[in-house]
Amino acid sequence: MISYNRLKDFTIQVFSNMGASDGDARLAADALLAADLRGVDSHGVARLTGYVRLWDAGRIKFDTKATIEHQTPSTALVNGHEGIGLVVAPNAMQIAIQKAREVGTGWVSVKNSNHFGIAGYHAMLALEHDMIGIAMTNASPLVAPTFSSERLLGTNPIGIAIPAGGQEAFVGDFATTTAANGKIEVLQRKGEQVPEGWVQAHSGEPSTDADELKKGGALLPLGGTPDGASHKGYILGSMVDIFSAVLSGANYGPWVPPFVSFLPLPENPVGEGIGHFLGAMRVDAFRPADEFKEHMDTWISRFRNSETVGDAERVVIPGDYEREATEERLRDGIPVAEAVISDLKELASRFELDF
Amino acid sequence: MISYNRLKDFTIQVFSNMGASDGDARLAADALLAADLRGVDSHGVARLTGYVRLWDAGRIKFDTKATIEHQTPSTALVNGHEGIGLVVAPNAMQIAIQKAREVGTGWVSVKNSNHFGIAGYHAMLALEHDMIGIAMTNASPLVAPTFSSERLLGTNPIGIAIPAGGQEAFVGDFATTTAANGKIEVLQRKGEQVPEGWVQAHSGEPSTDADELKKGGALLPLGGTPDGASHKGYILGSMVDIFSAVLSGANYGPWVPPFVSFLPLPENPVGEGIGHFLGAMRVDAFRPADEFKEHMDTWISRFRNSETVGDAERVVIPGDYEREATEERLRDGIPVAEAVISDLKELASRFELDF
Repeated sequence: MISYNRLKDFTIQVFSNMGASDGDARLAADALLAADLRGVDSHGVARLTGYVRLWDAGRIKFDTKATIEHQTPSTALVNGHEGIGLVVAPNAMQIAIQKAREVGTGWVSVKNSNHFGIAGYHAMLALEHDMIGIAMTNASPLVAPTFSSERLLGTNPIGIAIPAGGQEAFVGDFATTTAANGKIEVLQRKGEQVPEGWVQAHSGEPSTDADELKKGGALLPLGGTPDGASHKGYILGSMVDIFSAVLSGANYGPWVPPFVSFLPLPENPVGEGIGHFLGAMRVDAFRPADEFKEHMDTWISRFRNSETVGDAERVVIPGDYEREATEERLRDGIPVAEAVISDLKELASRFELDF
Repeated sequence: MISYNRLKDFTIQVFSNMGASDGDARLAADALLAADLRGVDSHGVARLTGYVRLWDAGRIKFDTKATIEHQTPSTALVNGHEGIGLVVAPNAMQIAIQKAREVGTGWVSVKNSNHFGIAGYHAMLALEHDMIGIAMTNASPLVAPTFSSERLLGTNPIGIAIPAGGQEAFVGDFATTTAANGKIEVLQRKGEQVPEGWVQAHSGEPSTDADELKKGGALLPLGGTPDGASHKGYILGSMVDIFSAVLSGANYGPWVPPFVSFLPLPENPVGEGIGHFLGAMRVDAFRPADEFKEHMDTWISRFRNSETVGDAERVVIPGDYEREATEERLRDGIPVAEAVISDLKELASRFELDF
């Protein structure tokens, strides 16, 4: 267990050592560690070394600033200029929030960015303004569309945050695949098989082999199989890809650059970097905020208190688990895997930092 | 087989006989029969009698007009005043389109409406303006959230239409459940079982009984089982419910009124009627329309021409099947089930129409 504050100080120093300004280093660390706080260990500090490698490879810059290339009262096209997504995305979200303040809603499509951590973090930035927040990003291709044996889509997550009154906010954050990569890795380490509908073999045949991805296989869209309506997950993942990248001028589909620095960039890119899409809607652009929040409270308590199936303990409201993880981890510290600790020690020695 | 034009003339006359203006009768018929053209037989003319019964029960009005109750430059709250969703929704979509013309995007949440047919129809209204269209609606509760044995959500569909250049538009239109009711009815009639992950029993136990819904069971959110990530379908269905109804002041969750007139209205309603959410985004509010459309063409042809799995004939672009059905049905006519024909004959005799 490492305390959140200690981990955060260290992360800020690593970003500073790559040339991030004080404000950017703090913002990037806040966004990155939101994953660790919320229990999404795969997307947090475990990726810090990955970001450093991308910087080493010249694929992330810290001496850069996102710019608005085009805008209307409710929209903007943002060029991230190869900045780190952990900084580009929250800044783009602030633009969406500002536009929502002015004309009711704001929508920002971002190109030339990089991985932005967890979608939920960016969506949640809207909450304190009594706005609904939406965040999505495309990602390197690991997912085969229904009936295809090729990896053409990323796990393309969607984050959605909706304010409530007395109740905690509704926060959904999910990959548009059946299973996120992290869940598969857990079963891999245990030597177990994955359930049907999570992956397919390189040939396109159904598989339950947890190693399938390493053998050229693919993740499957939410729904898993044609009978399970995987075409719906395919539509959702495509929508995220198009909003994030075709709308912005980033790379899409199989052209999205990989997160890992040792893989080559795709040939003949169709755009710049990876893309995000961020939105903010003021709830009082529709009805008075207190009315809205009162009804959200009714919605949440009705669902939370509904009858449970079999031995299920309760019906969960999206965001419950992550909020509980946050409380626990702020109190008890963040569990960091041995392999990650040794990565962080290497970073400490490289940048001459205490760890 | 009945020709589209004949079926449409008849449908227009039925709406006229309930008091719809010429324009409204045409619009409602166009929206309703879009389902038959696109191969979604469950949502088309098969429901005409259902709408007439709702009118008989005083739950749909034709001598009414939707009004804007509140607005900002990019949003509007529309009161449907108990009008038929087939008219209310396309009118609300035109408001979204007008706002998008002015400030880049437009978003309309609608209360006090009724069933609007297929979501794709309304989303597609944006295409001719080089806009992305989005349409969703909540519906009467048939779906159990993950870990719940209660029916708290409707099939809550999402329609999304994205313009392309030389290629046909990308049009996704899907219930946020694993299977739509119509698909289950097909297996019911054949006396077959449904795949795992489509329904659960009244007790909440997993089931493959196609009659489960009639016995108090529930449809399952997209993903089907907790292992299949049904919590993601639950998030999506909830988002549709909240955008359509909590934002607008319509009924949500278990309080959404049923489509069938013989079921009583839920007690202690939390809002008015059912709700929709409609959005339009001008693509040139982000980047020049011709650039966007050129890249959509690249996206579509790359996905369409990708390697197929096993004996699959091709990788489908969302909207392909429905467009092919439309071409075929405009040419050969619309297959109408015997039971529906006899319903239509009853309507013909009641309203003294030729059929």
